[in-house]
Amino acid sequence: MNPTAENPLRVVVWGENRHEQVEPHVAAIYPDGMHAAIKSGIEEHLGDRVRVTTALLDDPDHGLSEERLAQTDVLTWWGHAAHAEVSDEVVERVHRHVLDGMGLVVLHSGHWSKIFVKLMGTSCTLRWRSENDRELVWTIDPTHPIAQGVPHPIEIPQQEMYGEQFDIPRPDEIVFLSTFSGGEVFRSGITYRRGNGKIFYFSPGDQDYPVYHHRDVRRVIANGVLWAASDRPARETPVLLRYESGDFFTGHGYQGAMHNRDDA
Amino acid sequence: MNPTAENPLRVVVWGENRHEQVEPHVAAIYPDGMHAAIKSGIEEHLGDRVRVTTALLDDPDHGLSEERLAQTDVLTWWGHAAHAEVSDEVVERVHRHVLDGMGLVVLHSGHWSKIFVKLMGTSCTLRWRSENDRELVWTIDPTHPIAQGVPHPIEIPQQEMYGEQFDIPRPDEIVFLSTFSGGEVFRSGITYRRGNGKIFYFSPGDQDYPVYHHRDVRRVIANGVLWAASDRPARETPVLLRYESGDFFTGHGYQGAMHNRDDA
Amino acid sequence: MNPTAENPLRVVVWGENRHEQVEPHVAAIYPDGMHAAIKSGIEEHLGDRVRVTTALLDDPDHGLSEERLAQTDVLTWWGHAAHAEVSDEVVERVHRHVLDGMGLVVLHSGHWSKIFVKLMGTSCTLRWRSENDRELVWTIDPTHPIAQGVPHPIEIPQQEMYGEQFDIPRPDEIVFLSTFSGGEVFRSGITYRRGNGKIFYFSPGDQDYPVYHHRDVRRVIANGVLWAASDRPARETPVLLRYESGDFFTGHGYQGAMHNRDDA
Amino acid sequence: MNPTAENPLRVVVWGENRHEQVEPHVAAIYPDGMHAAIKSGIEEHLGDRVRVTTALLDDPDHGLSEERLAQTDVLTWWGHAAHAEVSDEVVERVHRHVLDGMGLVVLHSGHWSKIFVKLMGTSCTLRWRSENDRELVWTIDPTHPIAQGVPHPIEIPQQEMYGEQFDIPRPDEIVFLSTFSGGEVFRSGITYRRGNGKIFYFSPGDQDYPVYHHRDVRRVIANGVLWAASDRPARETPVLLRYESGDFFTGHGYQGAMHNRDDA
Repeated sequence: MNPTAENPLRVVVWGENRHEQVEPHVAAIYPDGMHAAIKSGIEEHLGDRVRVTTALLDDPDHGLSEERLAQTDVLTWWGHAAHAEVSDEVVERVHRHVLDGMGLVVLHSGHWSKIFVKLMGTSCTLRWRSENDRELVWTIDPTHPIAQGVPHPIEIPQQEMYGEQFDIPRPDEIVFLSTFSGGEVFRSGITYRRGNGKIFYFSPGDQDYPVYHHRDVRRVIANGVLWAASDRPARETPVLLRYESGDFFTGHGYQGAMHNRDDA
Repeated sequence: MNPTAENPLRVVVWGENRHEQVEPHVAAIYPDGMHAAIKSGIEEHLGDRVRVTTALLDDPDHGLSEERLAQTDVLTWWGHAAHAEVSDEVVERVHRHVLDGMGLVVLHSGHWSKIFVKLMGTSCTLRWRSENDRELVWTIDPTHPIAQGVPHPIEIPQQEMYGEQFDIPRPDEIVFLSTFSGGEVFRSGITYRRGNGKIFYFSPGDQDYPVYHHRDVRRVIANGVLWAASDRPARETPVLLRYESGDFFTGHGYQGAMHNRDDA
Repeated sequence: MNPTAENPLRVVVWGENRHEQVEPHVAAIYPDGMHAAIKSGIEEHLGDRVRVTTALLDDPDHGLSEERLAQTDVLTWWGHAAHAEVSDEVVERVHRHVLDGMGLVVLHSGHWSKIFVKLMGTSCTLRWRSENDRELVWTIDPTHPIAQGVPHPIEIPQQEMYGEQFDIPRPDEIVFLSTFSGGEVFRSGITYRRGNGKIFYFSPGDQDYPVYHHRDVRRVIANGVLWAASDRPARETPVLLRYESGDFFTGHGYQGAMHNRDDA
Repeated sequence: MNPTAENPLRVVVWGENRHEQVEPHVAAIYPDGMHAAIKSGIEEHLGDRVRVTTALLDDPDHGLSEERLAQTDVLTWWGHAAHAEVSDEVVERVHRHVLDGMGLVVLHSGHWSKIFVKLMGTSCTLRWRSENDRELVWTIDPTHPIAQGVPHPIEIPQQEMYGEQFDIPRPDEIVFLSTFSGGEVFRSGITYRRGNGKIFYFSPGDQDYPVYHHRDVRRVIANGVLWAASDRPARETPVLLRYESGDFFTGHGYQGAMHNRDDA
């Protein structure tokens, strides 16, 4: 997809928005919420090629109605303290839209969100420590569009440590690897395709540190949003269909496991 | 793992066992059930290095109690008509055991089983036709242990057609690709790692054709069982733990998202 | 890269141009040479966003001087009968430009070209037959930009058969799989990254059949050219450099294996 | 392969053996040469299931005659100061044996050996520093046989730093990632298949530090040797052959590019 001012990418930045309400030190760093910082980072880099709105956990339907998702090219997801409060119905809806072709950018503690865990099929556990580690983000795939425009490495002075083993499926692509002062390593920028959709997970970013104000982190998120947007002409649900011999294009309905033989 | 007669691999062949009860033409091909044919194929190749038992949908707990799974090195799964009847509780249990290190071999229509769909995170849909296609199974990775001892290609005279697009995550390894008389193609032998467990999906095999009596198909399933057995010394659940700086080995408990800072 | 009429992609279509000179039946299909057909297919789809020229084996330096390659964003390669006549010096030059970031699209029998074999590190052998097989090209990765705008499957009425095992490194991405009337299968559309460069191999296309006049094949080649163009700002050679502790950005010269310790 | 005392794995440890002759501090660490330390590490773990010999650069034919390679299941390779002295003829010979099915374990500075560079097709460059960094080797794939029996992470008190970007093809599997005191990261344990052969690259190990006496490093190398041994029944060269329609098993000779049509 090659968005323009006339045909901009429609991005929804989803935020849990709880730490900001409850913890003064978080509110001090992100006075308008982390979602506002993430939104402004995307706009800063993509300008009028993108139209960004936000959706919050406490909005009706978490701000993610069927109608809204149908109008969303890429969804970004930040959650942490309230993963369990996200309704299963909304998770199913987002999951379907990803398989149909909506892009998804999962950030930091979103690794344990219901939607990411469902898409991965694993526990998505890791090792962690929040003690002001310095994080270095190294580009492993120098050809990747998500890696353009940032130094090698990106230096983040203060960060939570996320370390291996990260219990995830083998990524389609590893774009970035991170190291921490303590010596840990993490697959911090990775991509997956699921159905017709593309997923980018990027771990830098935390409520306790001003990571979403970091210029390189903002650039990577903007790059990731652009990359995750589908190249396909339309949203489409993968379906199971029968195709007669010699006809490759007119699949027809599945009528149940016991009807194999009568189906033709 | 290198099983011996003294320390054999413990395999459970799980079967839905419905078609065999309801459809006379299936019972004619598999008088003792498909699970019996699959079991005998594994024993034929692995002999006393393996101890195979069966478990059926209609058994209490589907034959898959916590105690039994804890004693199972590799589980094979065939289901089709009654995927929906498998209890979510058992699916969760099997899922956890796979992440902990139990091997899983998913056969044919098991692509749409609850356990496979949960592990994949996608729709696992495909195109199909049951019209006596000839299937050819080509080895793509000649170094893979699962591909040893079978011709290139394996010829299966009569088969159901399964064709792309198969909505699955990118496999860790593609061992086999199949073609069908009608011209379709399918990633028919693929591997995944999830958590500490290994998964092999193999599509040849059907209730309407005597595929589980085919000598090469039986060999591949036996190879897959051997491959899926863990090399790890013990079952282990991936967990999320905090590690203090400089201490790599004594992770301690996660106390919730709001306790990051006080945790130490 | 997002080429425009003001800043078009510079593409060189390299052709061996021997069959067309020696075999009347080839000349009948491709009166201006296969390179002309490939060129027009790219122009047909990319229009003024691309500036395509051709280079031929019999040109001085095979048309691939240092200066020309430095001005080339993407090189396409078709060779067959005269792989051995390509000078090693030119192969080294093209190889270096690929590692530096030039895109490369290798077509059909180019699988056995010196440049492809050198980049792959394997024998690049396969099975084949030129007997009017029908080829079906199935899209395996529906999210891939190279797969956009073509039917699933692409039908090519007459083709040479290329079959597995294709002795290549595991592809970074499998975009297309092909089947043939005879039942064979082939990884027909695959991608690799090497150094800072991107490589797309696409097997449909032959001197004996009018494959480069096929609308979908032309579309795929145009898509491949666009995809292979680098997203990086400039050509850059990967180098081995020493970096002092704490300095991530100013690598300095390697002075030989015996100078490790004195180097600082 | 499952070697036994009766049917042991035949391993050749190849050593350049120059630093040990020229640099007293290296000779002090490795009085019998690095090859002797590597050999003893493999024997320590595999016992009588393996028969290890050594071959040196200064041996006739570098100790790697056609006859010897034909009797070698797995070759390990350590070189550094004298890569250029390895004859191209021997490199071609080793390359062919790898494609035919011989296992290859490339160690540390062997990343720049002729044989590894030829198999990879890239520059194999990296960033480095020899300043007593501590290296931590983290297991990324806990299911991999090569990762069994070692702590997570392995701690190596003193090491040369090897850092990204490492200009290699995307690995088939990343088993280990390393971090260094200075903050760098490296894909330190990776696998590739090439032809019928399996390759394991493992970066820990250096002439200036006693890394080949480290118990965990020795264990990984032994694991790698065992893994790289072929599961195939015999050495076999990938060849390009024609197969007539309907005959999948009796390929016949390729007679040159201009004989496509008359070949049948």
